[in-house]
Amino acid sequence: MVEAGLMGMTIPERYGGQGASWLETVLVVEEIARACTLSARILVEANMGAVGAVMAYGTEPQREMVARQVLAGDKPAICITEPEAGSAASQMTTTARRTGSDYVLNGRKHWITGGGVSRVHLVLARVLDAAGNEEGIGGFLVVRDPEAGVVPEGFTVGPRERTMGLCGMPEAELVFDGMVVGENCVLQPPGGFRRGFAALMNAYNSQRVGAGTIAMGVAAGALDHARRYLRERRQFGRPLAEFQGLQWMLADMDAGVHASRLMLREAAVSRGPDGSAFPDPMMAARAKMFASETAVRVVNDALQMFGARGYGNKEPLERMYRDVRMFTIAGGTAQILKTQVAGGLLGIKTPQTRGGYGVAGRLAAE
Amino acid sequence: MVEAGLMGMTIPERYGGQGASWLETVLVVEEIARACTLSARILVEANMGAVGAVMAYGTEPQREMVARQVLAGDKPAICITEPEAGSAASQMTTTARRTGSDYVLNGRKHWITGGGVSRVHLVLARVLDAAGNEEGIGGFLVVRDPEAGVVPEGFTVGPRERTMGLCGMPEAELVFDGMVVGENCVLQPPGGFRRGFAALMNAYNSQRVGAGTIAMGVAAGALDHARRYLRERRQFGRPLAEFQGLQWMLADMDAGVHASRLMLREAAVSRGPDGSAFPDPMMAARAKMFASETAVRVVNDALQMFGARGYGNKEPLERMYRDVRMFTIAGGTAQILKTQVAGGLLGIKTPQTRGGYGVAGRLAAE
Amino acid sequence: MVEAGLMGMTIPERYGGQGASWLETVLVVEEIARACTLSARILVEANMGAVGAVMAYGTEPQREMVARQVLAGDKPAICITEPEAGSAASQMTTTARRTGSDYVLNGRKHWITGGGVSRVHLVLARVLDAAGNEEGIGGFLVVRDPEAGVVPEGFTVGPRERTMGLCGMPEAELVFDGMVVGENCVLQPPGGFRRGFAALMNAYNSQRVGAGTIAMGVAAGALDHARRYLRERRQFGRPLAEFQGLQWMLADMDAGVHASRLMLREAAVSRGPDGSAFPDPMMAARAKMFASETAVRVVNDALQMFGARGYGNKEPLERMYRDVRMFTIAGGTAQILKTQVAGGLLGIKTPQTRGGYGVAGRLAAE
Amino acid sequence: MVEAGLMGMTIPERYGGQGASWLETVLVVEEIARACTLSARILVEANMGAVGAVMAYGTEPQREMVARQVLAGDKPAICITEPEAGSAASQMTTTARRTGSDYVLNGRKHWITGGGVSRVHLVLARVLDAAGNEEGIGGFLVVRDPEAGVVPEGFTVGPRERTMGLCGMPEAELVFDGMVVGENCVLQPPGGFRRGFAALMNAYNSQRVGAGTIAMGVAAGALDHARRYLRERRQFGRPLAEFQGLQWMLADMDAGVHASRLMLREAAVSRGPDGSAFPDPMMAARAKMFASETAVRVVNDALQMFGARGYGNKEPLERMYRDVRMFTIAGGTAQILKTQVAGGLLGIKTPQTRGGYGVAGRLAAE
Repeated sequence: MVEAGLMGMTIPERYGGQGASWLETVLVVEEIARACTLSARILVEANMGAVGAVMAYGTEPQREMVARQVLAGDKPAICITEPEAGSAASQMTTTARRTGSDYVLNGRKHWITGGGVSRVHLVLARVLDAAGNEEGIGGFLVVRDPEAGVVPEGFTVGPRERTMGLCGMPEAELVFDGMVVGENCVLQPPGGFRRGFAALMNAYNSQRVGAGTIAMGVAAGALDHARRYLRERRQFGRPLAEFQGLQWMLADMDAGVHASRLMLREAAVSRGPDGSAFPDPMMAARAKMFASETAVRVVNDALQMFGARGYGNKEPLERMYRDVRMFTIAGGTAQILKTQVAGGLLGIKTPQTRGGYGVAGRLAAE
Repeated sequence: MVEAGLMGMTIPERYGGQGASWLETVLVVEEIARACTLSARILVEANMGAVGAVMAYGTEPQREMVARQVLAGDKPAICITEPEAGSAASQMTTTARRTGSDYVLNGRKHWITGGGVSRVHLVLARVLDAAGNEEGIGGFLVVRDPEAGVVPEGFTVGPRERTMGLCGMPEAELVFDGMVVGENCVLQPPGGFRRGFAALMNAYNSQRVGAGTIAMGVAAGALDHARRYLRERRQFGRPLAEFQGLQWMLADMDAGVHASRLMLREAAVSRGPDGSAFPDPMMAARAKMFASETAVRVVNDALQMFGARGYGNKEPLERMYRDVRMFTIAGGTAQILKTQVAGGLLGIKTPQTRGGYGVAGRLAAE
Repeated sequence: MVEAGLMGMTIPERYGGQGASWLETVLVVEEIARACTLSARILVEANMGAVGAVMAYGTEPQREMVARQVLAGDKPAICITEPEAGSAASQMTTTARRTGSDYVLNGRKHWITGGGVSRVHLVLARVLDAAGNEEGIGGFLVVRDPEAGVVPEGFTVGPRERTMGLCGMPEAELVFDGMVVGENCVLQPPGGFRRGFAALMNAYNSQRVGAGTIAMGVAAGALDHARRYLRERRQFGRPLAEFQGLQWMLADMDAGVHASRLMLREAAVSRGPDGSAFPDPMMAARAKMFASETAVRVVNDALQMFGARGYGNKEPLERMYRDVRMFTIAGGTAQILKTQVAGGLLGIKTPQTRGGYGVAGRLAAE
Repeated sequence: MVEAGLMGMTIPERYGGQGASWLETVLVVEEIARACTLSARILVEANMGAVGAVMAYGTEPQREMVARQVLAGDKPAICITEPEAGSAASQMTTTARRTGSDYVLNGRKHWITGGGVSRVHLVLARVLDAAGNEEGIGGFLVVRDPEAGVVPEGFTVGPRERTMGLCGMPEAELVFDGMVVGENCVLQPPGGFRRGFAALMNAYNSQRVGAGTIAMGVAAGALDHARRYLRERRQFGRPLAEFQGLQWMLADMDAGVHASRLMLREAAVSRGPDGSAFPDPMMAARAKMFASETAVRVVNDALQMFGARGYGNKEPLERMYRDVRMFTIAGGTAQILKTQVAGGLLGIKTPQTRGGYGVAGRLAAE
C-alpha cells in the first residue's frame, strides 16, 4: 500500500502526501475492504484518525514526523480505551503529570489496535499540573520502534487480545508506568487542555466515517460474492439466481449497502461546525451506526446463500462474517452512536450517569 | 398549489411551466408530504408520470393541452392497472382497435387514482390493427371534463374503491366501451407501438421516485411529530425524550428516513440508459422499494411513541399510518421492485410465468 | 354472544357462569378474533380483567351483581388511565375521599374502553381518609345504566375519542365530579388499600393474556385470508401461491403467529406467585409484548400480499390492520412490558423517574 | 457423557438405553448447549437421527450393534449431502448396485459431521439392481473403526472442511469407491426402497428438533451470560443493567428464545402422520427454522452487549456466535424449511425445478 500511494494519502503534499479528501479516502477504503478488511483498516488509520488530528493540530515537527512514519508504512495507534472506560471515554484514568517541561504518563490502555506493531502512538491522558490538579485531557505523541532501537522507558506492550476476526492486526494492552515525554510531544488543539478533548475526539471521530466505510465495503464484497455464487451454483437443476426468495434477499442486501454508501459519502464531504476540518459528528455517527448494523446483516445473508460452503474456509464469507462483526463495536458502539444521534435530534444532552438528567439533562427549552 | 406554482413545475417554460428538474420536484414533494400525503401525491402526478411522458414523447398540441390542463390544476390520471393485471402489466386486456384513422377502445381499468376527478387521462391499451392483429401497446390521451361538457362517449367512471387511507382522492374503475379516439390522441414514443410500451413504462416509472419521496416525506413528517412529542410529553416526572429506549428508536427512524432521502435524490438526478429523459429505472426501483418499506416502519414507530394518543385522531399519526401504507403497493409493489432490482444485479431476466425460466430465464452467460 | 354462552364464561357456576379457565377463554378469544376484533375484545373484558378481579376479591353481593350484568351482556369498563398517567398508573390523580362510610370520587379518566356503553365500571382511585391523607389505591364498583334509569350523580361521560380502528366500541372520557359511592362499592383485595393496588393490577394484568390473544387471533385471521388469497389470485398465469418469495413470507408469518399462540397459552395456564388466581405477570407481559408486536408485522405482511385490494374495503385486511395496531399500546405498551420483563430477568427494580436508580434501582445483589 | 447416561438415552431399555422420549432428549440438549455446542451436537446425533432410524426400522442385530456403539460413546454419522446435492437431496449420485446378495457403493459424500471419527455410518445411496435400473433410495449401515481394525475396503475419509465454528468435530468428505456391503447392512423401512427414502428422511428430520434445540440452547446460554454481564459491568458509574435500551434488547432476546423453546418442545411431543415414531415434519421444520434464525439474532445481540470483550476470547460469546451460525444451514437450511412449511400451509407441492409447477405444482384444488 505504500507503493500504491495509499498510505497517508490525506497528508498534505508539502509533507509528501497527496492531500486527498475524506471522500477520496473512503472511495479507496471501500474498494480495499471488499477484498481485505485488515488492509482497509490500516488505510483508515493511516489516513484519518490520529493522522488527521496531527495534520490539523500538530506542530510542524510533529506533522513531519507523522508524515514520514506513515508514508513509510506505519499505521498509527490511537490510545483512548481503558479497561473501565469503554464507551465512557470521559472516565479515563491514565494521567500525564507535568514535571517541569515534561509530562509523566501512568495508566493502562487496552484494545489498542496495532499495539506492539504500530510506531506512532497518540495517547490520550488526563493532564495534571505539578500539584496534581486536573487541567483537562491532552494527547501525547509517542514513538515506539524497537527495530530502530526506539523503546521509551516505562512503555510496555501487554498481552494481545485474541479476537474472533480481524486477526491480522493485534489488539493489545499498553502500559505506561512513569513514561516521561517532553513538551514537544503534546498535541495541542486550540483551546488548551480544557477544550482540547472535544477537538481531539472530533478528529478521532472522523475515523468513524472510515470505520463505517470498512463495514460497508466488507458488505459490498460479500454482496459481490453472493451475486457470483447465485449465478454459478446450481440446485434442482438450475442456478440459485432463479430462486425468487433469494432474489428478494439480494435486492434488500443491495439496497442496504447502497444506502450505507450514500450516507457515508455524505458524511465524508460534510464538515463539522465552526470551520472544522473533520466530518460533521452527527452525520458521521449516524452513517457509522447505520452502515455497521446493516453490514452485519448483509454479510449474514450472503453467508446464508452459500450454505455450508459459506461456513467453511474455501470462501471468504466466514472471514467476512467474523471481521465485520467488530464494526458495531469499535470506534463507538452502535448504542453510543444512537444516543448521540438522538441527543442531536431532540436538542438535549444525554447524560449517562444515574442522576444525570436531574442536573444536566434538562431540555434546552426548559 | 396552482398559485404556488407547484402544479406542472417540470413543464418546460415554453409551455408555461418552470422546467424544474426531477430533483427540484422531489425536494418540494418531501416538504409537502410531511404535512399532507394527498397534496404530495397530486404534485407527483402533476409533474412526473403522465406529464413527463407527454413532455418527452408528445406532439406539440398534446404538450400544449396537457400543460394547460395541469397548470390550471388538473392532476392527470395514468390508466394501466386492470382487474386481472396488477403487477403483470403485460397481461393487459384493454384494446385499441384501429378503424381508419381512429382507434376504438374497449376494456376496464381499475384502481385509477383520480378516476372521476382527473381531466387528462393517459390510457394504455393493446393496439390491434383493423384485422385484429396485435401491434404492441400504446398510450392514448383522453380528456374528460364534465364541467366543460367534455364527456367522451363510451367512457364511464365506475364505482369508487373505499380505501384505508389517501381518502382525499378517489381510486375508481374506468370503463371503456367502444370509445373512439382520433390518431392525434396517440402518444407515440420513438420505436412505435412495438417498443413504445417500454418507453411509456419508463416515463411512468419515473413516478416511482416521486412515490418513494411521498412515503419518505410522510415518514419525515412523522419523525418531526415524534421529536416534538418526546420533548413535550412527560411520564414518570420527566419528558419522554429522556428515555434511552425511545432515543434509540428515534435514531434508527432518522437513519432510515435519511438513507431513503439520499437514495431517492440520487435516483432523481440519475438518467436511464440511452439518453433517457427519465431516472435510471434500477435506481428508481431500489429507492422506491427501500423508501416505502422504511417509511411504513418509521411511521409505525412514531405512532407507537404517541401511545393511545397516536391511535386517535387528534394527532396526524393515525392518518399518516394509513396513508403511508399504500406506498409499498401502488406504483410497483415492493416485491415486483425487488425482483427487478435482483434481475439487474444478477444480469438475468426474471420471467414470472410458470415455465418462464425454461425459455427466457437463462443466465446471460449461458 | 350471550346466547352462545361466551359472556362471563369464567364466572363460577354458582353465579350462573361456567367456571371456564383462562385457557378455555383464550381459545375462544382467538377464534372470535380471527373474524371480529371487537367481539373478541368484548369477550376479554367480559371474562377477564374487572370480572376476574371481582370474582377473586369481591363480596358476595358484588359478585352477584357483576355476574348478573355480564351474563346479560354487559362488558365492564375498567377505569385506570388518566390524561397525565398513561404508562405511569402510579401517578393517578383521581381521588376517593372518605366521608363517614362513603367515598367521594373526583377526577378524570380517559381512553376508557366502553365509556358510555358499559354498565359496570371498576374505577381505580387514590384513597384519602377524611383528613386528606393518602391510604393507597382502591377500586370502586360503579353501575351506570341510563336505560334502567341508573345514572350516578357526579358521573359524566365525556366526548368519545375517534380512533383509527376498533371503531365499534367507544373510547371515552369519564368525569367524576363529587360522585358519592357507599362502602359496599369498594372492591377490597386482601391487604387493604396499601397493598390493594398491586392485587388489582395483577387482576387487571391477567387481561394482558386476553389482549395478546386478540392480537394473535387477528393475525391468525389475516394469515387465513392470505392463505386463501394466495391460492385464488393469479398473476403471470399462475396462483400467487407458487411464488417462492411469498411462500417464505407466509412461513415466517405462520411461525410468528404460532410462537405467539404457544406463549399466550403457556401464560394462560400459569399462575402468579403466592397462590394467585391470575396468570404469572412476567409470562403475561412477555407473551403480550411478543404477540402484539408480531401481530402488527404479520397483518402488515398479509395486507401486502393482497396488493391494492388489501388497501380497499372489500377485504377485511385493512380493518385488521387498523384494529391490530392498538394492541402494542393498550393494556401495557410494548415498551413498558419490555421494561417489566427485563427487570425480572435482571432481578432489579426499574424505576422510571429521573433519579430513580439512585435510590431504588440498585441491583438486588448490592 | 457416556458416564452421565446421556449417550443413547433414547435407545430402548432392552438394548441398554433408557427409552427416553424426544422431549426428555431436547431438555437435556438445551442444558448442554448453553455451555457447549459441540457436546449438544453429539447428543443429538447419539439420540436422534440415525439412532432413531435404526431403532425404528433396523433389524434386531442392527439395533444391537448401534446401541452397543452409541452407548460406548460413538456418535453415528449420517451421510446424505453430496457436492452437487445440498438442499436437493433427491439429486444424490452415490449408488449402491446390487451384485448377488451384496451391494457395491460408489460416490462421494461431503460435509459429513464426524467424518473420520464416527464409527457407525448410515449412508444413503441410490439403489440399482444388477442391470443398473434404479429401485429407489436406501440406507446402508457401515462401521469404520480403525482402532478396532475395522476399515472397510473402498471407504476413504477425505480432507476435513475447516469451518468457522463447531471446530471440535470434523466435517469431512467420505469417498466410497467400490465398497462392498452385505444385505444385512441395508436399513429397510417398510415400503421398500421405493418409499424408503421418505421414511429415512422422516427419521433424519426428527433430528431437526434436536438441531433447533441446540441453536436455542446456545442462545439461552448467551442470554445467561448477557444477564450476568449487564449486572456486573459498570459504565458511567452504574451497571449496564440500568440502561433502558439494553433492557429492551434483553426482553426481546428472552422472548425470542422462549418462543423457540415452546415451539421445539411442542414439536418434540408431536408425532408425524400414520403412526410415525418421529415428530411431525411440519412442526419440526417450523420450529427449527424459527429457532435457528432467532438464535443467530439473539447471540448477535448478546455479543453486542459485551462490546469489545464479546469480540475477544475471554468470554464464550465469540465462540457461541461462530457456533450458532451453522444452524440456519445444516440439517435443512432455513430457506428449504420455509418452502416446506409454506407448501403445507398452502396445500401445494413446491417443486423447485424450472418447469416444476407446470406439471407437479398445481394446487391440490385444481
